[in-house]
Amino acid sequence: MVQMNVTKDKMTNLIQAEQMIKRLSDQGADMVSLPESFNCPYTGRSFQANSEMIPDGITTKTLSRIAKENEVYLIGGSYPEKVIGQKKVYNTCVSFNRKGEVIGKYRKMHLFDVDIPGKYTFKESDRILGGNELCVIDTEFCKIGIAICYDVRFAELGQMYAERGCEMIVYPGTFTIFTGPSHWDLVLKGRAMETECYVAGISSARNEKSKFVCYAHSSVVSPWGEIVKQMDEKSGTSICEIDLNYVQEVRSKLPVLKHRRDDVYKIMKLNNNVKK
Amino acid sequence: MVQMNVTKDKMTNLIQAEQMIKRLSDQGADMVSLPESFNCPYTGRSFQANSEMIPDGITTKTLSRIAKENEVYLIGGSYPEKVIGQKKVYNTCVSFNRKGEVIGKYRKMHLFDVDIPGKYTFKESDRILGGNELCVIDTEFCKIGIAICYDVRFAELGQMYAERGCEMIVYPGTFTIFTGPSHWDLVLKGRAMETECYVAGISSARNEKSKFVCYAHSSVVSPWGEIVKQMDEKSGTSICEIDLNYVQEVRSKLPVLKHRRDDVYKIMKLNNNVKK
Repeated sequence: MVQMNVTKDKMTNLIQAEQMIKRLSDQGADMVSLPESFNCPYTGRSFQANSEMIPDGITTKTLSRIAKENEVYLIGGSYPEKVIGQKKVYNTCVSFNRKGEVIGKYRKMHLFDVDIPGKYTFKESDRILGGNELCVIDTEFCKIGIAICYDVRFAELGQMYAERGCEMIVYPGTFTIFTGPSHWDLVLKGRAMETECYVAGISSARNEKSKFVCYAHSSVVSPWGEIVKQMDEKSGTSICEIDLNYVQEVRSKLPVLKHRRDDVYKIMKLNNNVKK
Repeated sequence: MVQMNVTKDKMTNLIQAEQMIKRLSDQGADMVSLPESFNCPYTGRSFQANSEMIPDGITTKTLSRIAKENEVYLIGGSYPEKVIGQKKVYNTCVSFNRKGEVIGKYRKMHLFDVDIPGKYTFKESDRILGGNELCVIDTEFCKIGIAICYDVRFAELGQMYAERGCEMIVYPGTFTIFTGPSHWDLVLKGRAMETECYVAGISSARNEKSKFVCYAHSSVVSPWGEIVKQMDEKSGTSICEIDLNYVQEVRSKLPVLKHRRDDVYKIMKLNNNVKK
């Protein structure tokens, strides 16, 4: 888990990410995840201004090199993706294998349009487009579903990943200081229990001076809904080991996935004709 | 909330339920819920042996009279329902209005077939049939979705109730002492947050001498995922007030129901041709 302090300067962020990924790799990590919006502050204007083409932009190229040099799977948090002909951008997570090859691209599906009077207003849809596709990455360990932040509140998305054979779901995601204390642990645990997957939520570090003060507390939760590892609010890295046998153990003890009533209800993934 | 001690004797259970409902009505309750399997112990054999036709059996008739005499809405926990031509029974919740009229019948949809080696084995499907239909009761306050115990783990069912306009979901349900401490609060809060409904889970009281030792802790959770009221493990009643304006407040602050991507995925309710 790379819980980094995101600055206004993209190069500083890329250098910081590289140092932290290298540190984790040196400690033996097989897989690293960056947080949502790791290469620029998560405010609408900055997010749009920093957008890049994928895979041709500097961020994707840099992450590819870092994954390759450190021989780790790298889940690239998220960063703004520019698309020709669109004013708005996507909030996109690109994942890489140990050779630095792109193995998945996920565009945040659910947009956070929220108004907590006197506390917090945020309207992602002003500047961001929602993606329409799932993203399952295939690794030497297991299949992993990728989604971003607010997506974690939507049980259907988690279930679609479980149905597609995932044993882990990674959510680069930065909850606010207003919703995090009530909901961060709860949604991660909820998704983990229902899908009987390991679930990770990877946030940036808290910066009290930022416009967007986040809850941080990057976490890994077991398929039984227990917290395996949780960071505090400070910048840093954390490593934890995951036992995929435990996924099978939980699924055999309490087979909720088998007990879903596919004859009574079904989550249909609809086809969307959208440029990728 | 009626968190009663369920005995082997049906008449004793009905008398106890009546006393507790009367007490709550005297304290001003508008609506009362009984726990799952309130009229007989929740073991396969007892559950089957105590089954009755609905609405012709003694339990339904008695609950109807109690609701009418106390002028309360009554969610009748659950009890075993006999169906002509079937060996197995349903685990059914019948709800009544203040006049004692039946306003809903729900048959537990998800069956709990669980094997925790050395701790706990339970196979509902040996003796119980799963229902195929939703049940929304219409009250003077709001629409309420009804489901039973293990159903609470299945997010799709909660979402289908939210889609149908419910502002509350009531789960008569008795978690075991093995899963309750890890999961009871979590699943109730999860369902409440996602559906932005009040969620109630109504359990029987803990009886250490019983074959089925339950977690108890009947609870009401707010649409923000906060516990409004929670009982301990002992037999008793508890009353709490619910503010439906808060449902609207939460839904306007953080409109997760509107943010679901109906253009990307959809929960389809399939038609089932099953005798009712």
